[in-house]
Amino acid sequence: MPTKIILDCDPGHDDAVAILLAHGNPEIELLAVTTVAGNQTLPKVTRNALVVARVAGIADVPFAAGAERPLIREPATAPNIHGESGLDGPALPEPTIELDTRHAVDLIIETIMTHEHGTVTLVATACLTNLALAARKEPRIVDRVQRVVLMGGGVHVGNRTPVAEFNILVDPEAAHIVFSAGWPVVMVGLDLTHQALATPEVRHAIAAVGTGPARFVGALLDFYGQRYRDTQGFGAPPVHDPCAVAHVIDPTIVRAVPVPISIETTGTLTLGMTVADFRAPAPDDCRTSAALELDHERFWGLVVDALERIGDPES
Amino acid sequence: MPTKIILDCDPGHDDAVAILLAHGNPEIELLAVTTVAGNQTLPKVTRNALVVARVAGIADVPFAAGAERPLIREPATAPNIHGESGLDGPALPEPTIELDTRHAVDLIIETIMTHEHGTVTLVATACLTNLALAARKEPRIVDRVQRVVLMGGGVHVGNRTPVAEFNILVDPEAAHIVFSAGWPVVMVGLDLTHQALATPEVRHAIAAVGTGPARFVGALLDFYGQRYRDTQGFGAPPVHDPCAVAHVIDPTIVRAVPVPISIETTGTLTLGMTVADFRAPAPDDCRTSAALELDHERFWGLVVDALERIGDPES
Amino acid sequence: MPTKIILDCDPGHDDAVAILLAHGNPEIELLAVTTVAGNQTLPKVTRNALVVARVAGIADVPFAAGAERPLIREPATAPNIHGESGLDGPALPEPTIELDTRHAVDLIIETIMTHEHGTVTLVATACLTNLALAARKEPRIVDRVQRVVLMGGGVHVGNRTPVAEFNILVDPEAAHIVFSAGWPVVMVGLDLTHQALATPEVRHAIAAVGTGPARFVGALLDFYGQRYRDTQGFGAPPVHDPCAVAHVIDPTIVRAVPVPISIETTGTLTLGMTVADFRAPAPDDCRTSAALELDHERFWGLVVDALERIGDPES
Amino acid sequence: MPTKIILDCDPGHDDAVAILLAHGNPEIELLAVTTVAGNQTLPKVTRNALVVARVAGIADVPFAAGAERPLIREPATAPNIHGESGLDGPALPEPTIELDTRHAVDLIIETIMTHEHGTVTLVATACLTNLALAARKEPRIVDRVQRVVLMGGGVHVGNRTPVAEFNILVDPEAAHIVFSAGWPVVMVGLDLTHQALATPEVRHAIAAVGTGPARFVGALLDFYGQRYRDTQGFGAPPVHDPCAVAHVIDPTIVRAVPVPISIETTGTLTLGMTVADFRAPAPDDCRTSAALELDHERFWGLVVDALERIGDPES
Repeated sequence: MPTKIILDCDPGHDDAVAILLAHGNPEIELLAVTTVAGNQTLPKVTRNALVVARVAGIADVPFAAGAERPLIREPATAPNIHGESGLDGPALPEPTIELDTRHAVDLIIETIMTHEHGTVTLVATACLTNLALAARKEPRIVDRVQRVVLMGGGVHVGNRTPVAEFNILVDPEAAHIVFSAGWPVVMVGLDLTHQALATPEVRHAIAAVGTGPARFVGALLDFYGQRYRDTQGFGAPPVHDPCAVAHVIDPTIVRAVPVPISIETTGTLTLGMTVADFRAPAPDDCRTSAALELDHERFWGLVVDALERIGDPES
Repeated sequence: MPTKIILDCDPGHDDAVAILLAHGNPEIELLAVTTVAGNQTLPKVTRNALVVARVAGIADVPFAAGAERPLIREPATAPNIHGESGLDGPALPEPTIELDTRHAVDLIIETIMTHEHGTVTLVATACLTNLALAARKEPRIVDRVQRVVLMGGGVHVGNRTPVAEFNILVDPEAAHIVFSAGWPVVMVGLDLTHQALATPEVRHAIAAVGTGPARFVGALLDFYGQRYRDTQGFGAPPVHDPCAVAHVIDPTIVRAVPVPISIETTGTLTLGMTVADFRAPAPDDCRTSAALELDHERFWGLVVDALERIGDPES
Repeated sequence: MPTKIILDCDPGHDDAVAILLAHGNPEIELLAVTTVAGNQTLPKVTRNALVVARVAGIADVPFAAGAERPLIREPATAPNIHGESGLDGPALPEPTIELDTRHAVDLIIETIMTHEHGTVTLVATACLTNLALAARKEPRIVDRVQRVVLMGGGVHVGNRTPVAEFNILVDPEAAHIVFSAGWPVVMVGLDLTHQALATPEVRHAIAAVGTGPARFVGALLDFYGQRYRDTQGFGAPPVHDPCAVAHVIDPTIVRAVPVPISIETTGTLTLGMTVADFRAPAPDDCRTSAALELDHERFWGLVVDALERIGDPES
Repeated sequence: MPTKIILDCDPGHDDAVAILLAHGNPEIELLAVTTVAGNQTLPKVTRNALVVARVAGIADVPFAAGAERPLIREPATAPNIHGESGLDGPALPEPTIELDTRHAVDLIIETIMTHEHGTVTLVATACLTNLALAARKEPRIVDRVQRVVLMGGGVHVGNRTPVAEFNILVDPEAAHIVFSAGWPVVMVGLDLTHQALATPEVRHAIAAVGTGPARFVGALLDFYGQRYRDTQGFGAPPVHDPCAVAHVIDPTIVRAVPVPISIETTGTLTLGMTVADFRAPAPDDCRTSAALELDHERFWGLVVDALERIGDPES
């Protein structure tokens, strides 16, 4: 039986790949897609989510917009990586489905509360404002979800600062709420995602799928790879967000280890750091884990497989 | 035409007086009462709000429960002042009205969005978690409310710490959201409310009303006065929360001056301080003001008058 | 018997008046003058101290230079108030005495350790870097001094920020060391010194002394008054630093009350605040006090009297 | 020509080994040994330093005591690792040399200022209070020393907290002063020193030296190894402090790479973290580097060689 997930995201190039993987993989049942300001403003990332829905041929999944800014801090976006639209590169078709009228926070809460206890996984590939607001508005979801799998943070590495990653740094208080809530949290951070490089071989395999969605992904990776090369010196770009989905599909592809993780919300140099304590074995009641090891080949195999299953929805 | 208000509170002895004042004064139209954890836990303060509704004979106003804890910090309550029930002292009758099924945050948002622009005043006499969540979930309310009048903070004085007041200190991040949102904020802080003492003369005047609600208030003040005497050395207790309602009724009774106010969210000694800048005249676009001067006699006259108008609802 | 003091300062217009008051008043025996970067850089304030020594006719007191920067924070000066030289206004004569070869910290330590226990008062009218370094280098001075009387801080008021005063804000960690060391500390802060205004009457009385030093002070106050008018809107300038000396001379002129005071070293808005706890009477073992009430007439009487006693040293 | 060093330490078991290595190795000329509170109180570690001097046969090097506590924070010691004396394990002989009468800070300053520019290396194996005080009291030493090589911190690892090491955490403000002063700093942190394990082979080789000092080291390692096993689960104990000396002797044994390093002085979870920025190649003007790779065999070879050269001073 596939795993039911709600995907909270801010597309974003790698979010787009995450949506495609979640939609195309048979082990995942996509219950809802929600958006939050992050890689770009809320209107932009929300529109992008609907664009990806059209490209992927997603018709019957509710999409809802959420928080337009972080809880406490001033908003920040990442146009240096994702461009002015948040999804620069390919031509973006007009969306064909309508946004759900509910607020993302309410869609998340209602979806969790109307499914059986322990059956819904929250997958987050953006800053954690929506999840934090949902947990504060309806605390019963914390016990009711199966777990939270999120792309963000990192143990020995940062990108926006020496030790902080963008998704966590943009809303560290929301991250604190999510990491300390008590539900199981799997952190798929930069340690892992910097292994998920879209190498020439990978991009060749995607191109070989030969469909519209595959060409769309190819165009995304052209832009995204160029920006990662220019701004951070990567030879091939790390495609972060689908790694969180891949962990849900197969934890032997994205391997995680239990370790206590807390969020630094006050440091001068370390704000937004995901502080992991590796000094001793994790205690038995540890609710957090960190993904550290990626099976690169099987991971990209999942992405290619999803694209093949999606085929050419518009033709 | 009376001023439409939503009263967000955590009854609490002085909250109870605030509800009675808001209900009994003809200049106020009470649209909704919402509750938040603070003086006691959410279930207790919510039940207390319904108890006060029965005592006051409030029948047609929606009451809704909100946040059960602060945004980021660990919960804190004030049983030393308000007792185990949050409303210790009088016998508490069974509530007769039902709680609204909506979350307080949604009731606040819907009430504001369905009334005309600029017609609803938010009065808060508790920590500001509900208002902060509402502002983040539906940012359009910030422009749409008339203003926020809140009991909390203080300019030269604290109670929980040397420079911080309980309502702000319990959820300083929520306070930061509310004070920096951009809507007009009137801070009715300890500078003002430490003038609102329930002196023997005041208590005599309340007793002279001779009704059930007046006796209820008398019993509240017995307990509350004793606790303020024991814990903080006050001869007569400061009755904070109705001061915020009184400012809405008549700003010549609770006088405020414009001054930039910001919330300290990180200090070691100053967490939760409402930092007011009196070094220069407030700029023209200043959106915050501080209440500093109380007309003690007219203030308590309002309370007595409200009790007289309420009469004996249960008889 | 006069009180033996070491004066640690950063002249600075009001420091200059403090030196003149300490030298000219018979109740004070000036053991040493030490300097620290603050109002201007260390070379400038040190030279200014020697200039004032010549103007005042101080010949047999050691002057030594100390810290050229704060302990932890980046240096900051106040040219907006004190001008490029730190003592703009009057013509500044060439110094005639030599600087002591010792570091200010060593001069402070040696002076205290070679005088009888409990006989030396440290008067500081600058940021507290030298005192902090001395207390850390030779902790025995803490028990050995009589007390520390300092100009800095304030209870309900700031100047550099809404709640912080320049001397404390420039080196808050040094202030923390000094306020928490355990020696008695009298804080003569802005509450007090904003009462020490050099009104036209005061300036007339100084001019009437008719000596070179009095004309020097007059020229200082011309410049300083203009700057306070331009930058902070003061009608007459507050002459802060001699208030600390005046408290040593006569505590009925600068009245202080015991109150616990701590330094905020981490706040976002409140860094450098002197947090005083007035919620309850000060405990018996309270080592800090705050000067709150000035006898304006007698204070300026002291200054005029000191100028008269100094006479015309160069003639 | 040997490298002239001042060794600032808090013996401490591994400090003792560092002193022996510095004394016994012909590439090092030990100019002075200074002590600071850390592993134990100042009187204890100072006495321990003199004890080690006797054991090692050091006769003509000045030893001086320095700071008895951190700059700002409350003192902390490590009796769990080093025992009540700070050097538990072997019998401790009475010292035979006298302490220099100067304060460590002055001995450091005078030693640096009286040697040729660029010829003195500061080696620190304790918290950095003395070095920080020296740099603030006499800023000219910053340009004048060759460099600072210190044991402390770590890039991906902590011991006292998940991300902070004891020497840095005990006085993070002093560490900030030292790391940001501008002199070259080589950080020999836990990344490196957790490789410097005193394995059974190592201990056998030390025992085989067969001298009094070697037996003394053997007894130190017995105690120290037991404590590391009990408190942190180490099979063989990491002998931190001589690694800093070894880097001075031969940087191919303790290999360092340039990387910007700053000290976190305010984080809730990260206080005292040495934040290294590995996101990009270090800029050309980078003044800090981190030791990451140890040649275990050659390192312990240096220690054994030093013990052999020292021989049996007391016989």
